[in-house]
Amino acid sequence: MPGADLPVTLDDIRAAAARIGGFVHRTPVLTSRTLDALVGAEVFIKCENLQRMGAFKIRGAYNAIARLAPEELAKGVAAFSSGNHAQATALAARELGTSAVILMPEDAPRSKMAATAGYGAEIVTYDRYTEDRVALGTALAEERGLTLIPPYDHPDVIAGQGTAALELIEETGPLDVLLVPVGGGGLIAGSAVAAKGMHRDTKVIGVEPEGSDDTKRSLESGTRVTVPVPRTVADGQAVSVPGELTFAVNRHLVDSVALVGDAEVIDAMRFAFDRLKTVFEPSGATGLAALLAGRVDNLPPRVGVIASGGNIDARRFTELLGG
Amino acid sequence: MPGADLPVTLDDIRAAAARIGGFVHRTPVLTSRTLDALVGAEVFIKCENLQRMGAFKIRGAYNAIARLAPEELAKGVAAFSSGNHAQATALAARELGTSAVILMPEDAPRSKMAATAGYGAEIVTYDRYTEDRVALGTALAEERGLTLIPPYDHPDVIAGQGTAALELIEETGPLDVLLVPVGGGGLIAGSAVAAKGMHRDTKVIGVEPEGSDDTKRSLESGTRVTVPVPRTVADGQAVSVPGELTFAVNRHLVDSVALVGDAEVIDAMRFAFDRLKTVFEPSGATGLAALLAGRVDNLPPRVGVIASGGNIDARRFTELLGG
Repeated sequence: MPGADLPVTLDDIRAAAARIGGFVHRTPVLTSRTLDALVGAEVFIKCENLQRMGAFKIRGAYNAIARLAPEELAKGVAAFSSGNHAQATALAARELGTSAVILMPEDAPRSKMAATAGYGAEIVTYDRYTEDRVALGTALAEERGLTLIPPYDHPDVIAGQGTAALELIEETGPLDVLLVPVGGGGLIAGSAVAAKGMHRDTKVIGVEPEGSDDTKRSLESGTRVTVPVPRTVADGQAVSVPGELTFAVNRHLVDSVALVGDAEVIDAMRFAFDRLKTVFEPSGATGLAALLAGRVDNLPPRVGVIASGGNIDARRFTELLGG
Repeated sequence: MPGADLPVTLDDIRAAAARIGGFVHRTPVLTSRTLDALVGAEVFIKCENLQRMGAFKIRGAYNAIARLAPEELAKGVAAFSSGNHAQATALAARELGTSAVILMPEDAPRSKMAATAGYGAEIVTYDRYTEDRVALGTALAEERGLTLIPPYDHPDVIAGQGTAALELIEETGPLDVLLVPVGGGGLIAGSAVAAKGMHRDTKVIGVEPEGSDDTKRSLESGTRVTVPVPRTVADGQAVSVPGELTFAVNRHLVDSVALVGDAEVIDAMRFAFDRLKTVFEPSGATGLAALLAGRVDNLPPRVGVIASGGNIDARRFTELLGG
């Protein structure tokens, strides 16, 4: 396959699956005849909203922390995140017997701070209008000897994220196309290595919010493009430039990127609720949105979708759907 | 076991499972460490909200219709229902190549009428303030030679409903207690036959809304008690008297009934949304509500819960949770 010398291989993903298997859920794959009839294809949705801590992020964080040396584990880990990566790092660190320091903006949602603290992490806050989190976090990690766990741009993180697609395809058999939400690109990089490694003809299509199309533009131009601060309801995908390592994988293995608008994402969340009885956060619904809104041309017969997460509370959900 | 001469046996349930297996979903079993920590037990939730047409009802309806004689199938079936049994009968009839007539009150929710019609059933409406649906339905069935498919009080329906517990326990192994929502009593009758047939020491506890405690009262008095018109948010359990056949099973096999209030049910729906990322209709959440509200004393270590359905739309959900 193209890019056989990529930084992450199918064997790495299989090794990650064995490493994290006793800890992460093997999440269910949902199907719906109503959905199939609507879109004219057989659709298999890998429900990472039902994963531990509510999103696929735990796969990569756990895999990366599990591979640290004993002396690194003795000192602890750190992450910058106000989202699912914070909770993933905190939970994985606790389960692996180490400590985590999470740098979060001081105005991060209380519920996310509480969940992260609930997993036993120390939270350090900063003022995101006046302080630079990378400088702060790097200084903090250096001072305390902590290992930084990046949210996507690391081979062990990418390999861990790829285990969701591996499980999906083990269960469904060959897929014609796999739709994967794209933020920093770690989930789709791992998914593409898994999917094309298992069946080289499977197409891998990314899905980005219209307001955050950095990976689409980067693939089209062949080099990493930075877009302005993303404005999208899909906060988990609000990234303005692809990762270096993720882009090095994705430029070889991702066939195209579909874009979805906020209203399409909200419609997909409503469809998931009403018809699939399941809760997707906006980023978790973008793959389904691309299907329902007809954003993928010439849909082939067998379609996989990674629903990346479900971390939205009932209050925010009703606001979004009512608005 | 007590009641070995009951109208439904574990073998009937195994036969039903084989009969309906290619048609119904083998629904996922959800677990949540957060939930386990909150209630102090290991909890396994059988997600019949993810069943075809969104509720367990399809199991019994399909099993009953599949057992009809060819000459009965040639004439068609009928049901009275404004709820999940209507959709279940319509869908099962279509899949089994027969026709269905569903008698619904003329003020039934348009969405339920549309779903039922969408499965190809003929809908006959009546005025529920002035007309007697049993007399109407019986006359209609007689006139057209249709077979009535009862919502719970039939051995084939009970055997079909029992397949959910069978699947659950096949997956989890022995449970100390199984919590099952109770309306007319078909789901719990089948569940109790399955659970106690597989492991005689498993306790089976029913869950009823406070405003619809006919089975609790009937079990306590040893005879079927009729309660006033139920007032409860859990419309799927708003039944005022247990079925004859279901009560004949349940009086032998159900250990006790826990009651839950409307606010507790709504809290459980919110918990399911926020933490389990799944959608339960009110009746589907009553088992979880009993756990979260501490309505089951001396909870043993391994607890099964049947979440019976998820047919609530996003609009009604936001009304209930906002109210």
